[in-house]
Amino acid sequence: MALTYDPLFITSDKSPINIPSPPPTLTQDELKRIAAYKAVDYVKSNMVLGLGTGSTAKHAVDRIGELLRQNKLKNIVGIPTSKKTQEQALSLNIPLSDLDSHPVIDLSIDGADEVDPFLNLVKGRGGSLLREKMIEGASKKFVVIVDETKMVEHLGGSKLAVPVEVVPFCWKFTAEKLREVMEGYGCEVKVRLGEEGEVFVTDNGNYIVDMYLEKDMGDLSVVSDEILRLPGVVEHGMFLDMASTVIVAGEFGVEIKNK
Amino acid sequence: MALTYDPLFITSDKSPINIPSPPPTLTQDELKRIAAYKAVDYVKSNMVLGLGTGSTAKHAVDRIGELLRQNKLKNIVGIPTSKKTQEQALSLNIPLSDLDSHPVIDLSIDGADEVDPFLNLVKGRGGSLLREKMIEGASKKFVVIVDETKMVEHLGGSKLAVPVEVVPFCWKFTAEKLREVMEGYGCEVKVRLGEEGEVFVTDNGNYIVDMYLEKDMGDLSVVSDEILRLPGVVEHGMFLDMASTVIVAGEFGVEIKNK
Repeated sequence: MALTYDPLFITSDKSPINIPSPPPTLTQDELKRIAAYKAVDYVKSNMVLGLGTGSTAKHAVDRIGELLRQNKLKNIVGIPTSKKTQEQALSLNIPLSDLDSHPVIDLSIDGADEVDPFLNLVKGRGGSLLREKMIEGASKKFVVIVDETKMVEHLGGSKLAVPVEVVPFCWKFTAEKLREVMEGYGCEVKVRLGEEGEVFVTDNGNYIVDMYLEKDMGDLSVVSDEILRLPGVVEHGMFLDMASTVIVAGEFGVEIKNK
Repeated sequence: MALTYDPLFITSDKSPINIPSPPPTLTQDELKRIAAYKAVDYVKSNMVLGLGTGSTAKHAVDRIGELLRQNKLKNIVGIPTSKKTQEQALSLNIPLSDLDSHPVIDLSIDGADEVDPFLNLVKGRGGSLLREKMIEGASKKFVVIVDETKMVEHLGGSKLAVPVEVVPFCWKFTAEKLREVMEGYGCEVKVRLGEEGEVFVTDNGNYIVDMYLEKDMGDLSVVSDEILRLPGVVEHGMFLDMASTVIVAGEFGVEIKNK
């Protein structure tokens, strides 16, 4: 076992590696990049790849572009999960396609806002949950990359937003119905606003209602169905039983959790 | 019991009334109007009303406008289920509002494409299923008006479309996933086209994928959840356990079925 500090060192359990001296402090962005690069190790030539959205996934897409440019990867087809990722991938000359043309994806790599001990996720604080869920749900392997601050005991446990995409038509009504359905979990709801205070609009022309939860939701599959049954709800940001691998970058190394 | 033919005669069971001679033949549109007028008998002054969409509901909206004009109804607020109904109601001077301002509706009146023996419905062949489901789901009483051709043994039994509203993004992928989920019921899927052969767009900017089913779906609540779990699906046209009353107009009279 290496005794010097190696942020890419992989542990198969939760124990931090034994280090002789305090490691250099890494920024959250450096941790994200470490996890992202590790995930790209799973990418092989000739793969159809789901390309995630957000500050962590951005590092993975950058890395894939770099490996293509260096000819270390060949014949990759990327399926972007947002317009923003599409633009980034185009700027890196990553060949792109879509789910209609490639309904089976070999591997998707994306970040997450929360990861629970069963590898269930909250995603969509970046606003792209629906496309991400479609693409990552169509993937043979889905590798999630996070820094260690994203690990939670239960979904909603960070007290940050659990997003729900809703149709704009009478969204206040839908938000109130959502609050009622989730009332038992101490739920408050807020519509997502954009940078200039206007209502944020998703790539699909919908709004996001963010749920803030006080309590553990318990059986997530039951809660998921209850939310999806509300007519104005398009999709929610809980990704249940979808991740095959979660790569967690922390101050003391990288941990890989497999389903 | 009246022995002369009275198309407005109400029976509380399925037996047609006893008539001495063949009735005059009524067109399907006349039957729709008979059911619609009967439904408007439930409307009282000061009600908040959900106004349905389609050829049958149109008669009900016309009738409400007529009664307002005659001062036989007062202080009605209409909540239209589509842009089309909104236009019709405006032309009739029916005061309008929306679900955000009136989250509880006293009574909704709307047509249906199919009605099963448990008063479950298929709706949305007119393309407005999502707004209808939001508004009619928020109604204390939901009166459905149909001609007798809409009665089926089980939903999908007419072999006509069971509509599903989907996001435009990679809709072919979603349609194929839907077909796979529904494969056990002999399902074929087709995207809805408009009058000029273009893909039909709903009031919410989505597409409709129509399902055509060979077999009884069995437990509809299970099938409903399976469909709603597909990420690209916004809503489906099965209205389960929502109708409180169904008014059926047939050649031999009007039948009222209560939940």
